[in-house]
Amino acid sequence: MASKSAVKNTPKLIREEARSIEKKILTRGKPAMRFPLRALANVKYSVQKGHFEMKGKTKERTLTVNTVKTFAQTLRLMSLSKDLVEQDDIASKREAYYVSKNWGEARFLEQPESDTVMEDLEALFAVNREQLGFIPEEKGGDIAGQLVVVDRDRDTGKTLKIDCTKFGSGAYSIPISVEHLKFETKADFILVIETSAMFQRLVKHNYWRSTNCILASMGGVPTRACRRFIRRLADERKIPVYVFVDGDPYGFMNIYRTLKVGSGNAAHLNEYFCVPQARFLGVTPEDITRYKLPTHPLTDIDIKRAKDALKNDPFVLHHKPWQRALNELIRMGVRAEQQALATHGLNYVIETYLPEKLAHPERFLP
Amino acid sequence: MASKSAVKNTPKLIREEARSIEKKILTRGKPAMRFPLRALANVKYSVQKGHFEMKGKTKERTLTVNTVKTFAQTLRLMSLSKDLVEQDDIASKREAYYVSKNWGEARFLEQPESDTVMEDLEALFAVNREQLGFIPEEKGGDIAGQLVVVDRDRDTGKTLKIDCTKFGSGAYSIPISVEHLKFETKADFILVIETSAMFQRLVKHNYWRSTNCILASMGGVPTRACRRFIRRLADERKIPVYVFVDGDPYGFMNIYRTLKVGSGNAAHLNEYFCVPQARFLGVTPEDITRYKLPTHPLTDIDIKRAKDALKNDPFVLHHKPWQRALNELIRMGVRAEQQALATHGLNYVIETYLPEKLAHPERFLP
Repeated sequence: MASKSAVKNTPKLIREEARSIEKKILTRGKPAMRFPLRALANVKYSVQKGHFEMKGKTKERTLTVNTVKTFAQTLRLMSLSKDLVEQDDIASKREAYYVSKNWGEARFLEQPESDTVMEDLEALFAVNREQLGFIPEEKGGDIAGQLVVVDRDRDTGKTLKIDCTKFGSGAYSIPISVEHLKFETKADFILVIETSAMFQRLVKHNYWRSTNCILASMGGVPTRACRRFIRRLADERKIPVYVFVDGDPYGFMNIYRTLKVGSGNAAHLNEYFCVPQARFLGVTPEDITRYKLPTHPLTDIDIKRAKDALKNDPFVLHHKPWQRALNELIRMGVRAEQQALATHGLNYVIETYLPEKLAHPERFLP
Repeated sequence: MASKSAVKNTPKLIREEARSIEKKILTRGKPAMRFPLRALANVKYSVQKGHFEMKGKTKERTLTVNTVKTFAQTLRLMSLSKDLVEQDDIASKREAYYVSKNWGEARFLEQPESDTVMEDLEALFAVNREQLGFIPEEKGGDIAGQLVVVDRDRDTGKTLKIDCTKFGSGAYSIPISVEHLKFETKADFILVIETSAMFQRLVKHNYWRSTNCILASMGGVPTRACRRFIRRLADERKIPVYVFVDGDPYGFMNIYRTLKVGSGNAAHLNEYFCVPQARFLGVTPEDITRYKLPTHPLTDIDIKRAKDALKNDPFVLHHKPWQRALNELIRMGVRAEQQALATHGLNYVIETYLPEKLAHPERFLP
């Protein structure tokens, strides 16, 4: 996808939309905006594209007495977005809400209101929030290994080449917005890791050097920036993505599935924030048996999560291997963490588990 | 403090302790270990040292029928620690727990058990967990600006100089263990920031360049690694630390106070994990009025937190300006976030607020 041209075109899209509204008003017509409907009922799992996507239903917001405030707010937020992109600035969702406090009657009373209008704009222009100049509050995601991130110094315009092999025990922290980054790498794969502690172990032992890979730490459920970074990197450099998380329903569904196909309630964004090429390295239910891992019993929440996924999740309904894995976990009644491999020695994960798994990528879950 | 030599001496300390126990056993005596008592009753606020510290009460663990398991576990964990430090390896608290699964009868049943023994060891040897080779699960803390972090490549032994002015929109992610790092900088101050979004704004505008500073993001309550990093940097390079958080009881007490003097229930560690030179730049109750910030009403939890601090917190009881600030906030009945400055324009914080505040460091709260 042409993310870069999309960034450049946002002001143009906004100007066109504004002009069509202005024209309508000047001819005494009722201006209207048409948004894709953002709801689960308007979502399907596109196997070909690899993510949840919208079916095409839309809603219309016509200017009336009842909609006048929301209509005005939408236009003001569009205008703020245009300024942000043109001035190469950013506003967090929270800041955008505070900026509105100067909009008189059009000010937002609570942040959920401005967030909703922001999501409308994303859907309207089919771009993501970051491309509108708005950034999420939270950042997250660390990188180490065989990757050079190409950024630029805003003041001097100079190109910055950030070599992720040169951070020692530290790491490169992914920025909140990643659309402008470029990548140089000859890595064989990206290993995406659930916990900071496991990431730190692999970094400490320079695991990326012997295996010629890029290590990425999600630190739990991946943020948008983390997902987008991995997606753009994997797309542009054509690198496989292997995901190493805990062997439990939370790791399977909340972490891996969110990374791979996105989340159900933000389907208009999944095009950007999913990593369809992701494959599940482990910990699988089979690993729990094969590697004799210490386990914990599944909690009621674990079991409910697994059963819900088997019943309702389009991603699981499509992939038989995931149905088998979830059913097997329920049958075994246990879960195992990636750190449980330490029971065989702290570096068993480096010396035995990962090499054995990486020898058979064809066995990875989809 | 000689953190580096402490790292090197850990195996020596462990060996000495083990030898004295061995000697006792060989002479048919009852071996015992003496730990400082880790409890609030054994804590005082040392104004001179700038952190909570222990009063000196101790407890003794003698080998008896009742203590035999804990005694054995303590010795095994000491032995693991010695191996870790000697082999320059690390184990997360979780991994240490899993390693114990091979200790037969001495294995830990739940992680809180191994965490407790680990804390005993920290207190026994008067070192921190990281110096024993154990690392926390969570990492956190990003750095940008006028700082070169000096690390080394574990494989090649080569020195790595990590220049934090060269990361564009990204940042340097603080590793979980920071004891081995060195620093090169001519920065005038460290600006420690509560939210990732505010950090990202200052990074985006290269704020560190015009003000010759180091930017540090806590992303909420600072992790141990983040606190330790700032402490070591501020100590070794003699740099003032200014803290920029939300104007609410959570920002004052949970974030700022934890950074500055440590937490009440881990007093044996505060020596390492506090930043006594930290000063509170804002947002103060006075700022809320002077900068006409949009506010939110204090919640019941906010009010309770403020009143508890006024009543019980030794840090607040010592510092009159903090008593005034908390009372003023309760009187106003409102709180204001650092991002509320956006109401005067997105870069008002850069162009007006921070310059006006930094012109008068003597007005910062203690």
